[in-house]
Amino acid sequence: MSNVHYSDYLQLETILNAQHPESDRLGMHAHDEMLFIVIHQAYELWFRQLLYEVDSVITIIGQPALNDNSPELQTVVHRLSRCATILKVLVHQIDIMETMTPMDFQDFRDLLRPASGFQSVQFKLLEARLGLRYEHRFGQGYYLSQLRPAEVQQIKAAEQAPSLLQLLNAWLERMPFFHPAAADAFWADYRQRYSDSLAEGERGNLNGFDHVFSGTAGGNLSSPAADKATAETRETAAGRSLSPAACRSALFIMLYRGYPLLQLPFQVLHQLLEIDEQLSTWRYRHMSMVQRTIGTRIGTGGSTGKDYLASALERHHLFREIAALTSFVLQRKRLPELSAEMQRRLGFAGA
Amino acid sequence: MSNVHYSDYLQLETILNAQHPESDRLGMHAHDEMLFIVIHQAYELWFRQLLYEVDSVITIIGQPALNDNSPELQTVVHRLSRCATILKVLVHQIDIMETMTPMDFQDFRDLLRPASGFQSVQFKLLEARLGLRYEHRFGQGYYLSQLRPAEVQQIKAAEQAPSLLQLLNAWLERMPFFHPAAADAFWADYRQRYSDSLAEGERGNLNGFDHVFSGTAGGNLSSPAADKATAETRETAAGRSLSPAACRSALFIMLYRGYPLLQLPFQVLHQLLEIDEQLSTWRYRHMSMVQRTIGTRIGTGGSTGKDYLASALERHHLFREIAALTSFVLQRKRLPELSAEMQRRLGFAGA
Amino acid sequence: MSNVHYSDYLQLETILNAQHPESDRLGMHAHDEMLFIVIHQAYELWFRQLLYEVDSVITIIGQPALNDNSPELQTVVHRLSRCATILKVLVHQIDIMETMTPMDFQDFRDLLRPASGFQSVQFKLLEARLGLRYEHRFGQGYYLSQLRPAEVQQIKAAEQAPSLLQLLNAWLERMPFFHPAAADAFWADYRQRYSDSLAEGERGNLNGFDHVFSGTAGGNLSSPAADKATAETRETAAGRSLSPAACRSALFIMLYRGYPLLQLPFQVLHQLLEIDEQLSTWRYRHMSMVQRTIGTRIGTGGSTGKDYLASALERHHLFREIAALTSFVLQRKRLPELSAEMQRRLGFAGA
Amino acid sequence: MSNVHYSDYLQLETILNAQHPESDRLGMHAHDEMLFIVIHQAYELWFRQLLYEVDSVITIIGQPALNDNSPELQTVVHRLSRCATILKVLVHQIDIMETMTPMDFQDFRDLLRPASGFQSVQFKLLEARLGLRYEHRFGQGYYLSQLRPAEVQQIKAAEQAPSLLQLLNAWLERMPFFHPAAADAFWADYRQRYSDSLAEGERGNLNGFDHVFSGTAGGNLSSPAADKATAETRETAAGRSLSPAACRSALFIMLYRGYPLLQLPFQVLHQLLEIDEQLSTWRYRHMSMVQRTIGTRIGTGGSTGKDYLASALERHHLFREIAALTSFVLQRKRLPELSAEMQRRLGFAGA
Repeated sequence: MSNVHYSDYLQLETILNAQHPESDRLGMHAHDEMLFIVIHQAYELWFRQLLYEVDSVITIIGQPALNDNSPELQTVVHRLSRCATILKVLVHQIDIMETMTPMDFQDFRDLLRPASGFQSVQFKLLEARLGLRYEHRFGQGYYLSQLRPAEVQQIKAAEQAPSLLQLLNAWLERMPFFHPAAADAFWADYRQRYSDSLAEGERGNLNGFDHVFSGTAGGNLSSPAADKATAETRETAAGRSLSPAACRSALFIMLYRGYPLLQLPFQVLHQLLEIDEQLSTWRYRHMSMVQRTIGTRIGTGGSTGKDYLASALERHHLFREIAALTSFVLQRKRLPELSAEMQRRLGFAGA
Repeated sequence: MSNVHYSDYLQLETILNAQHPESDRLGMHAHDEMLFIVIHQAYELWFRQLLYEVDSVITIIGQPALNDNSPELQTVVHRLSRCATILKVLVHQIDIMETMTPMDFQDFRDLLRPASGFQSVQFKLLEARLGLRYEHRFGQGYYLSQLRPAEVQQIKAAEQAPSLLQLLNAWLERMPFFHPAAADAFWADYRQRYSDSLAEGERGNLNGFDHVFSGTAGGNLSSPAADKATAETRETAAGRSLSPAACRSALFIMLYRGYPLLQLPFQVLHQLLEIDEQLSTWRYRHMSMVQRTIGTRIGTGGSTGKDYLASALERHHLFREIAALTSFVLQRKRLPELSAEMQRRLGFAGA
Repeated sequence: MSNVHYSDYLQLETILNAQHPESDRLGMHAHDEMLFIVIHQAYELWFRQLLYEVDSVITIIGQPALNDNSPELQTVVHRLSRCATILKVLVHQIDIMETMTPMDFQDFRDLLRPASGFQSVQFKLLEARLGLRYEHRFGQGYYLSQLRPAEVQQIKAAEQAPSLLQLLNAWLERMPFFHPAAADAFWADYRQRYSDSLAEGERGNLNGFDHVFSGTAGGNLSSPAADKATAETRETAAGRSLSPAACRSALFIMLYRGYPLLQLPFQVLHQLLEIDEQLSTWRYRHMSMVQRTIGTRIGTGGSTGKDYLASALERHHLFREIAALTSFVLQRKRLPELSAEMQRRLGFAGA
Repeated sequence: MSNVHYSDYLQLETILNAQHPESDRLGMHAHDEMLFIVIHQAYELWFRQLLYEVDSVITIIGQPALNDNSPELQTVVHRLSRCATILKVLVHQIDIMETMTPMDFQDFRDLLRPASGFQSVQFKLLEARLGLRYEHRFGQGYYLSQLRPAEVQQIKAAEQAPSLLQLLNAWLERMPFFHPAAADAFWADYRQRYSDSLAEGERGNLNGFDHVFSGTAGGNLSSPAADKATAETRETAAGRSLSPAACRSALFIMLYRGYPLLQLPFQVLHQLLEIDEQLSTWRYRHMSMVQRTIGTRIGTGGSTGKDYLASALERHHLFREIAALTSFVLQRKRLPELSAEMQRRLGFAGA
């Protein structure tokens, strides 16, 4: 057996000698530059871990079919949950950055131009792997101008590979809950119950329902097969990432998560919302921190840091279509009862 | 000596019997309603404490003059810091609310109409005491329609009393750092140094400088006395809460906080920014939580909960004018040196 | 439909008028006493919620049999997870208490005697409901002397009702994974593999294995039925809460949690460990806080607060027997493979 | 001006290629080993930053005299406060480690022997720089056997250099609050008032008072000069780190922190307690995590990880003598009033 030593194993010699403040190089030591370097390195280490976990989830969920009796879906939930836990710590870590006052930052700020956190390739890869496409990015030109060609290539490649969001859509679309005819009956029934539940001022929600679940405003609900064929087209047209068929599966999972087979799928959706919320909280606190520390001095790229961040905050919310399904949830007591056959299929063999 | 017993002292008999779920009253028990009640009661208890601390700070800072040799300013900093600590816990507390899924909330949601967190009088009082005026509130009409007349009166009264922000402005304005002539020379010098520090793309910041510190775009910097006379008028016109004179004092404090006498004033400004950031993080996470739990169903007041919260988030940032001063900070090595007399006055007697 | 108003619904009139500082009553206002009252009331509100959730879990798990195809076990996991989330906030809440300095506490400390947090009936009920028995409590006499007779009765009653720990033991004991003969073969095999995995210095662990899983040091592993008969006797003798049969089920769940049927049981065990850890972190930070704020002045009951808390910390770790099973886990690749029949029974019907 | 690029500046090429799982090297990929590496590297990065901050504080406080009118003491407080903030994040980071289940750890655990977090040189350096001496370390022999000779030398050197605790003691000792005669009178008066304040069961505290503040049980309080001469001797004898003279200064600071000159010294003491509490919370949660993940299998060094950690927890509490002073604090209204001359010296020049 090998004889592993802690500092070799962790390559501490390398890691702990990778901090070289510009202010020291120029002979004008600024105390807080060390913090600036260390915290960004810590962030990048965690981004590495997040990419590692997300990639492993993509590999699992990208398989042609998941075996429900294998531990694969548990693994997906577990790793997504780990990502959310990491992101919570990254949000908290902003507290450390905030111990750097504007005056302390001024001492070395000019030495770093034009370097900026905007140039974090890993963060952009993470967004791309989760599902952010180039055409939805805020500040596309800025991003092209700030990164090196090789970095741009790397991100573009990630943007073209199937993202977690796309694979989620495919996984949801192929869920075999209903036979096509039964599906139509079920969703027509559900639509009616939903319509009945709406208060006067909420009538307009029915249009939203039709848009989300059948892809046309007020149109009939079609079968999964039909949806699938045109999902691609609709996405571009409507700017949506989840097809009507996928949205129906996701809503079905939320509504009937009490059944054993739906429990892990529900957790998958739940963890994706957790990740989205933590990412967006991180962006929000990061933006506030930048504003407090830098103020509104114009950045080297021609836009203020704060404005960029505020826009990205809105635009980069990746799983908002899942969150939006909440609007279409009915009370438990008003849910259609599932057939005995369906209930059996959603249950355990031995129970 | 009295013989105090824990449960009497805390009135637990009362506190712990004040949870009466509507769903129980109507014979349709919904498990999670208890959580809904308890968490709101816990929030209101902490709002009470926050009001208590803010009121005590207002009393101190509202005095005609603070004795720098008394512990008063320490007390102000300590209590503002406590408010920030409480707010951090309140942000964290949202995690608990998020354990309530949309389906669980549906079970009793309709029973509570039209009650909503929007009706929290204490939260509105807190905003008013800190400095939010009626004319800057988002959703004014909605707020009048949702509250009882007595509650509206209570909030209006709080809005008319001097707020922490107004008292802060007055306290900053009367800071006697310079003799008027010396002040003009200092600020002209500082303006020149600031101008010299601007990069090509930042030239426009000089207009901002003049606006913030002299009240006119590009105008001359006037003496504190002159500013004071017209501060009231300018505020209304320009929508600003801190007068040019107050902004100059605040910037001076930030720049020269290394001197003993400025250390606590710097902490006061710092803690107000902390409170603002925590309040705004709370609003942000609260908004996300509402979106996840309720979706976009229209509220009884005619607007979606999420839209209201998003707008309030932007508009109710109370101390943003302090944060904005960051844009005008110079590097330490470029600061004008203070006169020996000034340095003496900013120091300790016995040192 | 009723017309519910926020402040009525939450009984704010009552809640927000239940703070009566002793220092005010005696005409010697101490500012921080309000914080002291509010934070204890907030803790008691959350204890109420914790008791509510734990009681609901006890009701579910105390049923003669749980239907694996019902959502009951999901509900158990969800509510235990909520308890852990609440406890995390309660740990964080100590930060607020720590904003009270020793000098600030001195201003009113003597007025409260002999009241103390030790008199929180709800916290003692919570410990009892989870599984702490009177004979394992640290400071039994002290506790009898500090509480009112009616309060002691209430806690004693809770101690005599089946606790979550006892019901967990029963639930684990009745898990029907194996036929008795198959069980013996499986565990003999597992014991051998475990033995083979031990390093030189770890040989003694085999005794621990035998003690935990068969109840005798080095004895043979017996069938569940035999264990059950004598579980009661052994518990008293050995001071253990989980019988050998229950420990075998728990270990089996940990080892084979990849199978669908074991996933929720694994989560139950995981959440109980989470609760235990948060409770113990709370006790630890609470103890440190008391030490910093009060120091080691002797309490009115004759013992220093800190010493009591340090001992309770060790003794009141309720689910440590679950945590201890970690020592007996084998690597995945060394696990015995389950029979096809067993694998089928642990899977989904429709998969 | 140089043209700095984000990834060069942070040496990301180096940092992000320093993760080499043993399980991959041996062709038996274990997914969670990456997390294990990354989290330890993140910890080491932050230990580096903590050492950097603590060293800078030591440099300032180790000067022969601090100029109260310079910003030095502010800087000390600010950097200690930053250390506490970092430690809070490190405590939180344990949540991430806890997402690794015992089974997941088993997959690669044996490959790492005998490496262990116990071998973190930086953590030991941090303890040594703060004030932990070799003779107070728990597990001295174990520590010598696990580290490389060069590492042991490095830690021993740190243990012999003046620690923050020693420099704190010297700084407190040379505080010139009183003329010797006045000091005797003041402390005799204070001792009497303290004695009068003790309840029946607390009489023994007076011995503690004499021990802490005059170095002899029940002896007279001597002048700072006399104490200083024998401080060294007493420390060894009594196992104390702060001399009686230093303890008197520290208590004086706590009691009269309302005076401007004492405000920052009070913050220094407060931040040291914060650091101690966070370090000890980290140790506590780390210990619980090890117990949950590893169980009680014997470590390669011959002791169980958990037992080592439990003992270190008690022994390595560095600033407990400051915390213990809380026991000797009197109520504000019972404090001796300071002379006008003293009050002047503790105040601002210009106020």
